[in-house]
Amino acid sequence: MSDRYIDFANSDLGRRLVGAVGLPSPARLERWQAGRLRPVEGALLLGGGPLANKVEAFAQRLTDEIYSFASPDLNATEWVAGLGPKLKAVVFDASELDDIDQLKQLREFFQPLLRSLAPCAHVVILGRAPEQLDDPLAQVAQRALEGFSRSLAKELRAGGTLQLLYVSDDAEDQLEGALRFFLSPKSAFVSGQVLRLQSCATQVQDWTRPLAGRKALVTGAARGIGAAIAETLARDGAEVVLLDVPQAKTDLEALAARLGGRSLALDICAADAPAQLLEGLPGGIDIVVHNAGITRDKTLANMTPEYWDSVLAVNLKAPQLLTQALFDSGALHDHARIVLLASISGIAGNRGQSNYAASKAGLIGLAQAWAPKLAARGSSINAVAPGFIETRMTAAIPFALREAGRRMSSLGQGGLPQDVAEAIAWLVQPGSGAVNGQVLRVCGQAVMGA
Amino acid sequence: MSDRYIDFANSDLGRRLVGAVGLPSPARLERWQAGRLRPVEGALLLGGGPLANKVEAFAQRLTDEIYSFASPDLNATEWVAGLGPKLKAVVFDASELDDIDQLKQLREFFQPLLRSLAPCAHVVILGRAPEQLDDPLAQVAQRALEGFSRSLAKELRAGGTLQLLYVSDDAEDQLEGALRFFLSPKSAFVSGQVLRLQSCATQVQDWTRPLAGRKALVTGAARGIGAAIAETLARDGAEVVLLDVPQAKTDLEALAARLGGRSLALDICAADAPAQLLEGLPGGIDIVVHNAGITRDKTLANMTPEYWDSVLAVNLKAPQLLTQALFDSGALHDHARIVLLASISGIAGNRGQSNYAASKAGLIGLAQAWAPKLAARGSSINAVAPGFIETRMTAAIPFALREAGRRMSSLGQGGLPQDVAEAIAWLVQPGSGAVNGQVLRVCGQAVMGA
Repeated sequence: MSDRYIDFANSDLGRRLVGAVGLPSPARLERWQAGRLRPVEGALLLGGGPLANKVEAFAQRLTDEIYSFASPDLNATEWVAGLGPKLKAVVFDASELDDIDQLKQLREFFQPLLRSLAPCAHVVILGRAPEQLDDPLAQVAQRALEGFSRSLAKELRAGGTLQLLYVSDDAEDQLEGALRFFLSPKSAFVSGQVLRLQSCATQVQDWTRPLAGRKALVTGAARGIGAAIAETLARDGAEVVLLDVPQAKTDLEALAARLGGRSLALDICAADAPAQLLEGLPGGIDIVVHNAGITRDKTLANMTPEYWDSVLAVNLKAPQLLTQALFDSGALHDHARIVLLASISGIAGNRGQSNYAASKAGLIGLAQAWAPKLAARGSSINAVAPGFIETRMTAAIPFALREAGRRMSSLGQGGLPQDVAEAIAWLVQPGSGAVNGQVLRVCGQAVMGA
Repeated sequence: MSDRYIDFANSDLGRRLVGAVGLPSPARLERWQAGRLRPVEGALLLGGGPLANKVEAFAQRLTDEIYSFASPDLNATEWVAGLGPKLKAVVFDASELDDIDQLKQLREFFQPLLRSLAPCAHVVILGRAPEQLDDPLAQVAQRALEGFSRSLAKELRAGGTLQLLYVSDDAEDQLEGALRFFLSPKSAFVSGQVLRLQSCATQVQDWTRPLAGRKALVTGAARGIGAAIAETLARDGAEVVLLDVPQAKTDLEALAARLGGRSLALDICAADAPAQLLEGLPGGIDIVVHNAGITRDKTLANMTPEYWDSVLAVNLKAPQLLTQALFDSGALHDHARIVLLASISGIAGNRGQSNYAASKAGLIGLAQAWAPKLAARGSSINAVAPGFIETRMTAAIPFALREAGRRMSSLGQGGLPQDVAEAIAWLVQPGSGAVNGQVLRVCGQAVMGA
């Protein structure tokens, strides 16, 4: 289940061998540790347009080491060299680049600082969603940011990550929540992503317990990624309700007890599952994470009806029916947050997974279909698409395929269940209604896509 | 410049070796040959919902061997086995699958026929765009088609291709043009793609010369992909105007003479390029293919201002300025068709190509930004994103990277300039206004994506 190659590549001998022979050299990624307070432990550099000033207003809550690169006339190379410390986080506001010529500011800003990035540095580029702009020239320039960002993300070394956030002008208040995720080790395995932030009426009150006072349901919570999600939501202050099949009852109850939550042992595919669920949630629910899922891989030529039906039933139909029941009954509170566990396979398709990929693409459709009516209640629904994550499921993949899955990504390794859990813990925060109907990949910028 | 491995893998000895050792076995793809009349040479199977009947109405113009699988009660395995001939083309209308349970019809329809596909068979699945449906259940089911289609495309063997077309109900008249492309060898190197067809007022009059009476401008036309585009548009009846830099004048004039067209030697980045172009097109223009493009690869850390500026100027700024000039001056006729040459790098980003990927992503933005105002004049603008194409440019890539680029795709090989040209020749047809503001990848379903 562990990736021993990372240990090897980061050992004294391994580092020399890997360098000499040209093998992949995945970095040891920093993760968020319990008890940590600051999102950024080190220097944060702010540059570019006026959103950088918005960030500066709360930057002292992210780190105590803030550098601001406001003047475009500055000799950037000298300035960065003069900084001294390596940069742990960088935010560049590209939202005012509104024609093709101005895009050169990207090169001018980033080039001198690339050699000053600390290991596992986190970079965020801010822009405006092209479809929300009137000026075609600005639309083109802002859309170009996507190609630039995904390329630069592929060039970062030593575990660095980079995302592009398109921020609408009524969403600027939600930047803090997004940057606390994307500039911290919580997003260790997220890179090359493009997300849109819209306005959101609710805010996090206490950053040490952003989910305080919120009740969260997690399906498939007995082990693996589901258990990590439950732990992380509980860490962030949520009262957790853990759901899994009756066979997993022992594990489920033990975890629920440890997290001070409750357990619900039920089969989400049972005919009375919606009724049982509503009965098990008498006070309603604020957060729902549809994590339960199965694989039954076969090429379509060899796919049995049972393989097809069971994957569609567990992965797609159950989330659909349960969401509908929670919504119709009023058990789903206003300002609710729903997250669906999709997959890169649902985006790119995968040989041997026509059933699984259909179910996961369907979940992306579920997020897109439900987003408008949930937004009307201040709620949101999004999909998280994991790439290669080190779990019991991926440990069963044959060696060569498993190695390909791990290495064919910018970060050159698989992620951990915690990485998926952290992304979800951000998306279910009160302020994260800014993201709705979207897909966030947690994949180390895997090569595979569509 | 040629891929000798395909020859080897398809030789008698090679086939045995490749099978024994487990090497990739790319098929020799069938391409469209001059003088061919029928899009489908062999059996066409139609199945699924009512759009299959729409297709049946014109199917005899595609092939003379048509099988229709209308009854869902039929024992499909026996029925397909009883067909006799291998299937060269399959169309399945999934547009009426409006809940999750009904998706099983995909398995029921496709499973028995997968072993009856001829080499280089072409499969098209028809659906309804989820965002145009009101029923959330139908939206989910239709979105699920994407995961299914991309997976099944990855499972097809022997050069088979598969696409998903979301057809709006006012676009059904445009199915013939789309299927003449996607069911024929013209789409040999296109697979795993998802496109939307909308209504379009204009139609092809003569399928043997679909571009008759249309004047087409191709930039970068002296060689490579640009020359192939010019040849293909001329083959389809267009009067071609070939544009390239003054240094390429000799090649350009020779090609123009051979195609019975005109040449325009000018530097598209010159300050007076828009004026020169308008002067060179006194009668206006119907079709514009912005193919001219350059690469100047360096990681951003080593990128010179000249590398950045020249790539952005040629690849993005020139198409933007020329399109604007053609539009503002009225030289761009109503019902015009514009195609921009993007790239997979513009979608997924690429290490060492932050300038190129930004320019190509910007072109996708250009298509999206301009689509609505062109639609108001019956015109369209789309991007074509080639994957690995065998050209002088890709022949210069180091061996290992070149092999990875070729093999990391469902078809296991690079495409030919002709493949890109055929996609463009379809998109610029009068009826192809049905596609607007979209991106069509010509990449053999390359693994790389976002």
